[in-house]
Amino acid sequence: MTTMNDAKRVNRDVLGGFLFKLFSSLGMTGENARTCADAVVLTNLWGIDSHGIVRLPTYARRLRENVINGNPKVRVLADSGALRILDGDEGMGFLVGHEAMHQAMEMAGAHGIGMASVRNSNHFGAASLYAWQAVKEGFMALVMSNVRPNMVAPGGAEPVTGNNPIAFGAPTRLGFPFLLDISMSTVAGGKFFLAQSREEKIPFGWATDKDGKPTDDPGKALEGFLLPIGGHKGFGLSLVVDLLCGVISGGTFQHRILSMYTSPDSTSGTCHMMLALDPGVLLGESAYLDRMDTFYRSIKSSPVRAESCMYLPGEIEHATMLRRESDGIPVHDELLREINCLARDLGVEALDTIDQTRAPRGPGRILNHR
Amino acid sequence: MTTMNDAKRVNRDVLGGFLFKLFSSLGMTGENARTCADAVVLTNLWGIDSHGIVRLPTYARRLRENVINGNPKVRVLADSGALRILDGDEGMGFLVGHEAMHQAMEMAGAHGIGMASVRNSNHFGAASLYAWQAVKEGFMALVMSNVRPNMVAPGGAEPVTGNNPIAFGAPTRLGFPFLLDISMSTVAGGKFFLAQSREEKIPFGWATDKDGKPTDDPGKALEGFLLPIGGHKGFGLSLVVDLLCGVISGGTFQHRILSMYTSPDSTSGTCHMMLALDPGVLLGESAYLDRMDTFYRSIKSSPVRAESCMYLPGEIEHATMLRRESDGIPVHDELLREINCLARDLGVEALDTIDQTRAPRGPGRILNHR
Repeated sequence: MTTMNDAKRVNRDVLGGFLFKLFSSLGMTGENARTCADAVVLTNLWGIDSHGIVRLPTYARRLRENVINGNPKVRVLADSGALRILDGDEGMGFLVGHEAMHQAMEMAGAHGIGMASVRNSNHFGAASLYAWQAVKEGFMALVMSNVRPNMVAPGGAEPVTGNNPIAFGAPTRLGFPFLLDISMSTVAGGKFFLAQSREEKIPFGWATDKDGKPTDDPGKALEGFLLPIGGHKGFGLSLVVDLLCGVISGGTFQHRILSMYTSPDSTSGTCHMMLALDPGVLLGESAYLDRMDTFYRSIKSSPVRAESCMYLPGEIEHATMLRRESDGIPVHDELLREINCLARDLGVEALDTIDQTRAPRGPGRILNHR
Repeated sequence: MTTMNDAKRVNRDVLGGFLFKLFSSLGMTGENARTCADAVVLTNLWGIDSHGIVRLPTYARRLRENVINGNPKVRVLADSGALRILDGDEGMGFLVGHEAMHQAMEMAGAHGIGMASVRNSNHFGAASLYAWQAVKEGFMALVMSNVRPNMVAPGGAEPVTGNNPIAFGAPTRLGFPFLLDISMSTVAGGKFFLAQSREEKIPFGWATDKDGKPTDDPGKALEGFLLPIGGHKGFGLSLVVDLLCGVISGGTFQHRILSMYTSPDSTSGTCHMMLALDPGVLLGESAYLDRMDTFYRSIKSSPVRAESCMYLPGEIEHATMLRRESDGIPVHDELLREINCLARDLGVEALDTIDQTRAPRGPGRILNHR
């Protein structure tokens, strides 16, 4: 098992430049390559390493083989003013998600709130990317995506729905934005590997065995399925996501959604929902931000238990970003080798790692929004 | 401890008529008394007995003493077309919630989606009432309300946020609507009483003791606080509810919200959020409903574990309603006595219970929406 101790560090701008060339070499326009490169860099800066460069080889293969579209033309299928249904043209999820949120903000600018439900997309990375896209422009945002079923409902024996992610963002002036990004399962599968390697049990309520029976054995969990947060509560919320993404868009839902890992040669049919709204509609921006200050401070000043910390949504990601902007983004050796093989195949210069003696220092640039 | 075995049964129409007279005698207009009576009857028909007639004595006391307004004039404070901020005029929550959802639907009719955030309201009962109000008219709906903090965040020692409810509704044609109604805590406090009476432990993750430390002792939980579903996930969602209800409306949030039980002589400052959208914007109603059929059937036909059942959101409530429309609504003796004392004080005829030999039989009238 590799750990972050085997990791090299990469400067954020170096990584961004490398990714821009990589996506360009895969046929994307400059604007699209920039959008995708920024999305990957920001994800790794936040420390959401499960959704960053680790996914590059899969994205690249699917782009190269024209399974997914690197320059999608997102079409408006229906428009009621503040609610649109879009078709993602089987595009790279970063690009479809970005365009859908752009349209939701456009509608929110005109009507106070705007929502886009979009079909025929693909894996869009971390949902918080699109929440942040809206927060930067002063909007609150709600983001959802459906994923292939991997979660067993209370009483069920097989997955019937995905651990569909929900993100929510809100502007603040306190150093970091409110950015919640959660899936509807209690935990992700990575925790089972960790428990297994440590020979520890996992709590009941995390997973089932392959027959859908709740288990505390991480080995059985790895052969089994995920369980929802709060039992029927997370199950119900997962269905809500699929209704707003897959059902009303005329797109794909439940088992018709494909995984880019188990079905690499097919577009996934993933659907998203992007909603933006103006939080200052009554108060104006400044008074709204005053209230957010009060909201945050009352939580941060409340007592914590001994040896505990309490974090607001987005706080840990922001701290990780500041650290990685200064120290670089860790990329473990095996992934670095894989990415540099990919670069060679595409005729792109290899990804440079940092000589730590001259690592750049500086404040969080991307987050300097106010 | 009283159980449902000590309960009398009341016919739904008899209860509705009684409640109409009761709310009328408290000064409500006929329309308002009807809205409140219908809300309470439906809540008990669904089996959500924690939010039905059990709350009548408290509602009545607050109405009688003019703490809350039985005929509120809900005012529009800001209007961006599809997003409005409303003031609830310190009204009875049923009435404020009903009017806010009415306005959300009006906006959704014009723009595809509509949202109302409303301040200065009070306890509005079960959130699913308003989701159902929209579903009856063919809309999907999202409903939220903030409540006084009762939930400890991961790492925290004191409640910083409420187990704020979220409801979601969607039209179907399969006999029962999609109606999810969940709070953000793992369980409600009633489960601690039950475990204590049975001398059972409760799972870690349900509650803390009075110092905010997670406990498996139901007695300590009763002195302590609730814990969120999925740890930081339910905590984060609870904050989202308060942002959309209390913060953007210019209303009350976190500890400034009061409880009608601990502060019976003050209006609560409760805030709600009502969102409605047209699920047929692309597909039209019929094709949308076809897709909902497919969505439901694929879940209901999936295998369940031995001796288990799998329910869709709203399914149990619908079954309870059919049973209670036929057999009556159970009201335990102690509550019946309390309600009849209240009726006598207000000069309203006592609540009649059913002679089971002539209990009415019939299909679910309220739910006959398609």
